[in-house]
Amino acid sequence: MPIVRTKIERAHADVIEGLAACGVATVHEAQGRIGLLGAYMRPVWRGARLAASAVTVSVPPCDNWMIHVAVEQIHKGDIMVVAPTSPSDAGYFGDLLAGSLQARGCKGLVIDAGVRDTADLEEMKFPVWSKAISAQGTVKETLGDVNIPVVCAGAIVNPGDVIVADDDGVCVVRREDAADVLKKAQARIANEGEKREKLNSGVLGLDLYKMREALAAKGLKYV
Amino acid sequence: MPIVRTKIERAHADVIEGLAACGVATVHEAQGRIGLLGAYMRPVWRGARLAASAVTVSVPPCDNWMIHVAVEQIHKGDIMVVAPTSPSDAGYFGDLLAGSLQARGCKGLVIDAGVRDTADLEEMKFPVWSKAISAQGTVKETLGDVNIPVVCAGAIVNPGDVIVADDDGVCVVRREDAADVLKKAQARIANEGEKREKLNSGVLGLDLYKMREALAAKGLKYV
Amino acid sequence: MPIVRTKIERAHADVIEGLAACGVATVHEAQGRIGLLGAYMRPVWRGARLAASAVTVSVPPCDNWMIHVAVEQIHKGDIMVVAPTSPSDAGYFGDLLAGSLQARGCKGLVIDAGVRDTADLEEMKFPVWSKAISAQGTVKETLGDVNIPVVCAGAIVNPGDVIVADDDGVCVVRREDAADVLKKAQARIANEGEKREKLNSGVLGLDLYKMREALAAKGLKYV
Amino acid sequence: MPIVRTKIERAHADVIEGLAACGVATVHEAQGRIGLLGAYMRPVWRGARLAASAVTVSVPPCDNWMIHVAVEQIHKGDIMVVAPTSPSDAGYFGDLLAGSLQARGCKGLVIDAGVRDTADLEEMKFPVWSKAISAQGTVKETLGDVNIPVVCAGAIVNPGDVIVADDDGVCVVRREDAADVLKKAQARIANEGEKREKLNSGVLGLDLYKMREALAAKGLKYV
Amino acid sequence: MPIVRTKIERAHADVIEGLAACGVATVHEAQGRIGLLGAYMRPVWRGARLAASAVTVSVPPCDNWMIHVAVEQIHKGDIMVVAPTSPSDAGYFGDLLAGSLQARGCKGLVIDAGVRDTADLEEMKFPVWSKAISAQGTVKETLGDVNIPVVCAGAIVNPGDVIVADDDGVCVVRREDAADVLKKAQARIANEGEKREKLNSGVLGLDLYKMREALAAKGLKYV
Amino acid sequence: MPIVRTKIERAHADVIEGLAACGVATVHEAQGRIGLLGAYMRPVWRGARLAASAVTVSVPPCDNWMIHVAVEQIHKGDIMVVAPTSPSDAGYFGDLLAGSLQARGCKGLVIDAGVRDTADLEEMKFPVWSKAISAQGTVKETLGDVNIPVVCAGAIVNPGDVIVADDDGVCVVRREDAADVLKKAQARIANEGEKREKLNSGVLGLDLYKMREALAAKGLKYV
Repeated sequence: MPIVRTKIERAHADVIEGLAACGVATVHEAQGRIGLLGAYMRPVWRGARLAASAVTVSVPPCDNWMIHVAVEQIHKGDIMVVAPTSPSDAGYFGDLLAGSLQARGCKGLVIDAGVRDTADLEEMKFPVWSKAISAQGTVKETLGDVNIPVVCAGAIVNPGDVIVADDDGVCVVRREDAADVLKKAQARIANEGEKREKLNSGVLGLDLYKMREALAAKGLKYV
Repeated sequence: MPIVRTKIERAHADVIEGLAACGVATVHEAQGRIGLLGAYMRPVWRGARLAASAVTVSVPPCDNWMIHVAVEQIHKGDIMVVAPTSPSDAGYFGDLLAGSLQARGCKGLVIDAGVRDTADLEEMKFPVWSKAISAQGTVKETLGDVNIPVVCAGAIVNPGDVIVADDDGVCVVRREDAADVLKKAQARIANEGEKREKLNSGVLGLDLYKMREALAAKGLKYV
Repeated sequence: MPIVRTKIERAHADVIEGLAACGVATVHEAQGRIGLLGAYMRPVWRGARLAASAVTVSVPPCDNWMIHVAVEQIHKGDIMVVAPTSPSDAGYFGDLLAGSLQARGCKGLVIDAGVRDTADLEEMKFPVWSKAISAQGTVKETLGDVNIPVVCAGAIVNPGDVIVADDDGVCVVRREDAADVLKKAQARIANEGEKREKLNSGVLGLDLYKMREALAAKGLKYV
Repeated sequence: MPIVRTKIERAHADVIEGLAACGVATVHEAQGRIGLLGAYMRPVWRGARLAASAVTVSVPPCDNWMIHVAVEQIHKGDIMVVAPTSPSDAGYFGDLLAGSLQARGCKGLVIDAGVRDTADLEEMKFPVWSKAISAQGTVKETLGDVNIPVVCAGAIVNPGDVIVADDDGVCVVRREDAADVLKKAQARIANEGEKREKLNSGVLGLDLYKMREALAAKGLKYV
Repeated sequence: MPIVRTKIERAHADVIEGLAACGVATVHEAQGRIGLLGAYMRPVWRGARLAASAVTVSVPPCDNWMIHVAVEQIHKGDIMVVAPTSPSDAGYFGDLLAGSLQARGCKGLVIDAGVRDTADLEEMKFPVWSKAISAQGTVKETLGDVNIPVVCAGAIVNPGDVIVADDDGVCVVRREDAADVLKKAQARIANEGEKREKLNSGVLGLDLYKMREALAAKGLKYV
Repeated sequence: MPIVRTKIERAHADVIEGLAACGVATVHEAQGRIGLLGAYMRPVWRGARLAASAVTVSVPPCDNWMIHVAVEQIHKGDIMVVAPTSPSDAGYFGDLLAGSLQARGCKGLVIDAGVRDTADLEEMKFPVWSKAISAQGTVKETLGDVNIPVVCAGAIVNPGDVIVADDDGVCVVRREDAADVLKKAQARIANEGEKREKLNSGVLGLDLYKMREALAAKGLKYV
């Protein structure tokens, strides 16, 4: 029953680029504080910030065969999202696979497991968010699936959903909600610009957000 | 009963600057190996090294309202110390709050929970030591306290205590002990200078510290 | 019964240098996916890559006395490998010991516990792989052993075994297998060069490794 | 946008009872080694074994309001499945809610968070599988959803899916696959009965499963 | 500077007994959701439920000497609370110490570290809440303190504070608040009795707590 | 290169029985506080206490094939010790294998991974110490080794070494040291009997162990 879905729908490129510019924290807030992958998903090297369409890969524990299969399904501008069917820290992914993905225009990797050749990944400027760094090799014995819905670090990722990732972590936006979430995220940013200026000039959040009455009503005492 | 104490005593500025120069490991040793916060408290970006007076904030899980309240209590040169009343990795703090704190002359943040906008925090050179990096948003529903004694990462921090923090972690020094601890720390450093020179020149610690007899007495055998 | 073995055999210097050039992931694969230390062993600063002969130290929990003893047993080009007899995150090691080791030509430290003075360690370019960063001080009360077989982060390390370490982690190679493992590792690298070129040019791993038939035989379906 | 779906489809009662009899390990194998919730989900008391239709609840961190809402949606024979939108160990659930659920014929609770009043839960024979035991109270401030698909301990659970749980943990079976999985699970059990008898009589698995040739072919040597 | 305070004040015996009857979850709620020790503090054997005055012990890592010192400070009806100055899972405590404590009328032990001889502890019916079970032995080399304020599993415990402990975990009540907290806890219990009856008879919490309007006002939709 | 060693030496049966009677904590102390497996190794059911000769099995991650191979190498009175070559929580072992082992007179299992069918294991009174309980199935694809030295939960176990295990955890005694360790352990027990009696009668450890002078000499003050 293992399958590879070869056709998936993707969000519009402009929407994806717009979400990249907003960043993880803003996008997560804009869609109602959902879609965040577990905080243990950390960038292998810091400074990357992107959004891309997910090509999802469900892999057996300690077996990276399906990643090779999934490379072929990558379109320019996609990101690969790998989720093991049971928890694993093994090193599923290294510089050879990164080179292969870059050759296809892949923007990066999100993997709820380990990666290796991390010095090379940084040198290649190939962005990776992973659960672990581990040189532990994997086998190629058992099939999995490509482009089915997966649970990656506690979040459901459907093929074609938009992944937003930066130094704060990784967030997933449903493909069909992406345009709407972008609008809300951009509204937040517009709104935050003015606030930031005021806060940076020394205006207190207590005054800016008019919190003093609510605090007093809840019973806060100054002593 | 939630309260904000608006007046706290602080250690003398010279003492605080002196402790900053000594660093966490030395200060911790100088005061008898106490006061270290849990080793899971890591700098969001490496290279900061400081000491400052603690303004303490006790916050409910997943609720950052009181941080806004506490900003007003910050004096130039203080550091904010945030402790949730039950464990949380949520992202209580981001770039807007950092800008607000910097506007008041706040030196940094120590938080036994998560923070976000970490790329911005590094760019702003706002030092943060935290338990986690997480974009997970928080609510503003429940009160807490400002400037009461808190337990942060396993250590008691009273308002006005001196926080020393660098790449090794975070240490707290009781305000009333600060001058005395500084003297002991400076004595250690003076003492270490000479030792360092000898060790770097190839003298063995075994000889420098005259350990050979004690080792033999305890029964160590060379074979 | 605590002992210090003063004579250990080491692998040939050329073999050690050869292994350093191969890196952890390749060496680990070349020797049949064994010898990897636990993935929680992380470099204190990134960018170091080395191989060296292990001088092993078995230490009591929270007691670093034997590290001082072991310094004397270091030959130029060795690495120190420290394993507590029960789990500990304490800061056994700092800049003074690092200076002392550098004076003897020691290449680095692998320790299944904590270290401190990490900003200094990076400035000194002294490579350390550790379980934790912690300023927590240790005592000097109880003996341990130098140059006995130890279990470090889940792997057996014998004195004189070759430690290979880089940003991916740490791997141990039996001294007597080192020359043979080097050959296999170099063969992998030679073999990978051509593969890398092809993958980078866009050839799919599916084709390069001729996986399509095996996948079909196992039942993979494209839909 | 928070919603309560009041109508969900459930699997046939006979199928559910059949799956309960098979147990978690067998069901998990029968459906191709998928559907297992994270191994950190442990029974509060040992000895319960059941299968039931899931009523799912998505709750904010540290807020148990929606559990009260979900009680009303329970039909006799259901199980409640609670998943926080960000990780929490708080004690969302205690004896009062358990009594309320029992009054409605609810078979148990699966919660990716904490519970309390555990002595009472055992005395009431109300089965609970949870991530933690914690007395930490929660608030009733923020809405969530009832009977939407949730990710619970890493597994997707749709309302109406069949939950199988025993001392080994918790497994979810898609409602539409339940009858088919039951057949496969029962076939495994029938098949295992004969095997068990032989193994218990001293026949080796090596012979029973005819493994010797495959092992030799792979290169296993007896020395 | 290590000290043993030989005189501490205790709460009234009736108050202590009253709190024992209320249990951890209720007491924790009654005092405003504070005072809970970390949820990793688990009973070595289940079924004990008690309240007692704390005799506090601050111990070095892996060193149990001060526990012997503290035994003498135990009065009939006290509980010993042990907190290491840095994290440790070592087995500080076993059957001999338990016998010694029982001889003095000590009600139990709370220790943020490990214990051993757990089968004996259960047979002796000596209640212990600990972070770990470990046979790892400790040394007797370094002093600590008895009856000073300690941080145990994240909570401040002062000598003479009331410890409440049961299968749900451990909670500390300030000695000076104990009588007041007891009243609030008893009021909760009185109030809960009626609620429990109604809920058990099938009345929904939604109706009992009159939640429907608030939920609708927040925007909850039934679909 | 995977091998099965078919001949191993074992300790004398009387020595093994003697060690069983002493228990883990005493044996661990008697041999100088070494040999303890990591404290995360917990009994699946409580109350078993045994000693036995180790038949060791090195298994790949998530692959239990070699356990079937190892069953044949079990002699009456042995215990099986399973160590994966990289960390795994998968359920390598269940009731069928337990039945097969019991048929050969095997006393139990120690496994640095997961097991399943735990209710059956308890009913069969087959003792198991494991890192995890998990229903997660494994494959039978890759070879490993039987009766080679392994690292299990951080401790080296050689084939034929004596495993001592009870509710406190698991300890390994070198086969060649077993008789000597037994003598020391029995001496401890003889010595403890008298101490226990005195302590239980109310004599303080401070007096029994004559600690008062040493404490005063170190500077302990009573206030």
